[in-house]
Amino acid sequence: MEKVDVAQIKQMDRDYVLHSWAKQKSVHPKVIEKGEGIFFWDDEGKKYYDMCAQLVYLNVGHSHPKLMEEFKHIGEIPLASPGFATASKASLAKKIIDVAPSNMSKVFFASGGADSNDHAVKIARMVTGRYKIFSRYRSYHGATFGAGNLSGEGRRFTVEPGLPGFIKFDTPYMYREYIHFESQEAMSDYYLDRLNSQIMYEGPEQIAAIFMEPIPGSNGVLVPPKGYLEGVRKLCDNYGILMICDEVMSGFGRTGKMFAVDHFDFEPDMMTFAKGVTCGYSPLGGVIVSREIADYFDDHVLMTGLTYSGHTVSTQIGCVTMDIYNDEHLIEHSAAMGNILAARLEKLRRFDSVGDVRYIGLFAAVELVKDKKTKDPLIAYGMDYGKDKVGLMTKFIGMLSEYGFYTYSHESSVIIAPPLIITEEQINEAMNLFEDVLTHFEKTVLFANPSVMSK
Amino acid sequence: MEKVDVAQIKQMDRDYVLHSWAKQKSVHPKVIEKGEGIFFWDDEGKKYYDMCAQLVYLNVGHSHPKLMEEFKHIGEIPLASPGFATASKASLAKKIIDVAPSNMSKVFFASGGADSNDHAVKIARMVTGRYKIFSRYRSYHGATFGAGNLSGEGRRFTVEPGLPGFIKFDTPYMYREYIHFESQEAMSDYYLDRLNSQIMYEGPEQIAAIFMEPIPGSNGVLVPPKGYLEGVRKLCDNYGILMICDEVMSGFGRTGKMFAVDHFDFEPDMMTFAKGVTCGYSPLGGVIVSREIADYFDDHVLMTGLTYSGHTVSTQIGCVTMDIYNDEHLIEHSAAMGNILAARLEKLRRFDSVGDVRYIGLFAAVELVKDKKTKDPLIAYGMDYGKDKVGLMTKFIGMLSEYGFYTYSHESSVIIAPPLIITEEQINEAMNLFEDVLTHFEKTVLFANPSVMSK
Ligand SMILES: Cc1ncc(COP(=O)(O)O)c(C=O)c1O
Ligand SMILES: Cc1ncc(COP(=O)(O)O)c(C=O)c1O
Repeated sequence: MEKVDVAQIKQMDRDYVLHSWAKQKSVHPKVIEKGEGIFFWDDEGKKYYDMCAQLVYLNVGHSHPKLMEEFKHIGEIPLASPGFATASKASLAKKIIDVAPSNMSKVFFASGGADSNDHAVKIARMVTGRYKIFSRYRSYHGATFGAGNLSGEGRRFTVEPGLPGFIKFDTPYMYREYIHFESQEAMSDYYLDRLNSQIMYEGPEQIAAIFMEPIPGSNGVLVPPKGYLEGVRKLCDNYGILMICDEVMSGFGRTGKMFAVDHFDFEPDMMTFAKGVTCGYSPLGGVIVSREIADYFDDHVLMTGLTYSGHTVSTQIGCVTMDIYNDEHLIEHSAAMGNILAARLEKLRRFDSVGDVRYIGLFAAVELVKDKKTKDPLIAYGMDYGKDKVGLMTKFIGMLSEYGFYTYSHESSVIIAPPLIITEEQINEAMNLFEDVLTHFEKTVLFANPSVMSK
Repeated sequence: MEKVDVAQIKQMDRDYVLHSWAKQKSVHPKVIEKGEGIFFWDDEGKKYYDMCAQLVYLNVGHSHPKLMEEFKHIGEIPLASPGFATASKASLAKKIIDVAPSNMSKVFFASGGADSNDHAVKIARMVTGRYKIFSRYRSYHGATFGAGNLSGEGRRFTVEPGLPGFIKFDTPYMYREYIHFESQEAMSDYYLDRLNSQIMYEGPEQIAAIFMEPIPGSNGVLVPPKGYLEGVRKLCDNYGILMICDEVMSGFGRTGKMFAVDHFDFEPDMMTFAKGVTCGYSPLGGVIVSREIADYFDDHVLMTGLTYSGHTVSTQIGCVTMDIYNDEHLIEHSAAMGNILAARLEKLRRFDSVGDVRYIGLFAAVELVKDKKTKDPLIAYGMDYGKDKVGLMTKFIGMLSEYGFYTYSHESSVIIAPPLIITEEQINEAMNLFEDVLTHFEKTVLFANPSVMSK
């Protein structure tokens, strides 16, 4: 293809491309000129620590040599539609099942997180013959109509009026509980009791599935209290409800284990995945189903499909990505680096504007407040989407970017989720930048002028 | 990656992969060993005419040398999330707008047909502030919850109970009209009058969009009667309703023009696309929007997005694919070859089991009947999905495959939609096979035994 210069790219982008989650007039996108490991360089030669792995998918980092090499040969593989068997599709399915919880058995492939979640809902309804679907507030599951209706935040509103039978319940949010609990277990008991009541009110025999991010990601890395997920599993067992875990963001080493569910003592009936399975080198997602569900479809028609289910190139890239996790011991490395990151995050608690830090592996969030005592969030709930992005969080993220720390935020939480290949030294360098920005932000913006506080 | 032999592939496929639209026990997938042009070879060395271009996407044929070459360099391009501008995304958007109807202005990228349609619905609701969505019976728009609810056939049932405000109307189906019309125009008037009534009953000011495949594909290449689409456009204009055309299957030269809408005298407000934009070499889809809609989002937030919107690799493959259409004059070639195919299809009318043939460019369907006078279809409506595929159509498609003619069917129609690079000679060879199969099928199956006729 002809070479296009940066000015041309930006002009064509302005003229012809619609950008997500934004007023197009306020979009001034940069061009990535080069990416390498945890770094990328923009069109002005500025270098960034990619501290959110793009959108929490680039686990193996930018320009991984093995993947770049793989593309050289990928044109040689014959393309085939879903109806055929292919080496890449079959091998990747096996590789995934090999590392999934022991009850997992087969994979249905899709193209991203959203369509994977839509398919998990459909499968749950087919298998159970029930139609109600529970999911949680403070969750994000994607932007198609199924995934959007599952989502428990403002990004859902454009898929409403919503799907009948999609019901929301609350996510435990330890930092902001109304009730004071003596222990995590007590908190879990409270939430499980509330969930149980809601199941009763909705009719257990109507409910196909309970859908959850085991650790909600974009909504602030909300690590659940002890015993909570296991308790949900028990409720599901009591009522014949399927438990579906969305591992789109948390899967493939992000949390220091292969899947987030591996931190806990239960097995879901289905798991959805995307992002880390190819690290974004090619679009891919899917649904992992248990033996029981797989068996059901031996003799019942799986009434769904996508033209690109099990896409040849994407599954081939997935196979190589899985090999990289293994060969480079990235899951173990993620756990080790998670400890380094955790220590740095704990040190942030001394800042007046840091309300909470939450982390597991290389999956972390820093929640900012105007006032530590009142826990007054930096921006009010629901203010980051659908509004002009000119609030305090936007300022903070902008400052981080100026310092070369690239990430994004949701509500008042900053996401920190770098490529899993990050080193101890790089974590320390990046977190030094973060601290510099916090200091500067508090001094020049947040506490500079008393009027900010009342905004 | 390690080399896997065919037996292993098939075993792993059986063990680990969920296949679409099927009972898993009755899936016995072949492996494609090689693909070249309009041909592919299975694991027994058998050669097939790929007469449906896999799933009507492989317009440039198998193993196109330019695309195979492009993959060699694709690893060198830095990956970037939707928030960035990239050469491939911006260039592809421009290339698409350059060939789209003159009112079209910007592109939102998705990963396939279904999620593109979900996004078009969301955009229509955002722009109009209305929520009802009209779409047609005898249509297929995909398997996510939005696209599924748009679809007007049995594949929709697993996304039900459905989205509120999704309303269906009828597709003109010239071969099977209850009323005898003097002309195509008279038929259009009748359908437009009915649609107008339905709009009135549903409340015009409630309706965001009318969604349609301009020429329904999987449901049997139902070329509309003269004046029909233009009439729908006028109704939309009268009531401020957006007209959205799903060009996922019909776009990119399939019909002998760049888009199916180019055959008619109107411009839609949005078009969705997938398949032909990359010919399946990488998963990609999207929504093309008019200048008015694009402008709306200058100052209003586009409240949707996907991690892989404008995926770097997929849009790069899209750019090369668009260049191939142009360099190889494939659109013009499709029109020319469409004439050859049309002549061959007309000749099929002499067969007792051929009820109708429909075609436009290289987009065709042969509708089979048990009896030409009564038009009794080969299989009853709704019998091809969700049932054991052991009916007469399955037998016919199986026979075609035995003869080396690869395609699929829907209801009682056989789809014929080969790669656009097909030659006159190849069309004649393939259609000779088709005639041989028809002859054999009529003799040994359909009219062999009177009891078949009453099934
Ligand atoms: C937990 C979770 N599920 C689903 C999605 C949707 O994935 P996609 O954007 O690929 O559709 C996301 C995206 O960030 C996610 O974080
Ligand atoms: C007209 C039309 N729209 C949408 C789709 C769905 O596309 P996908 O399977 O890529 O989701 C199809 C698939 O065949 C189609 O033919």
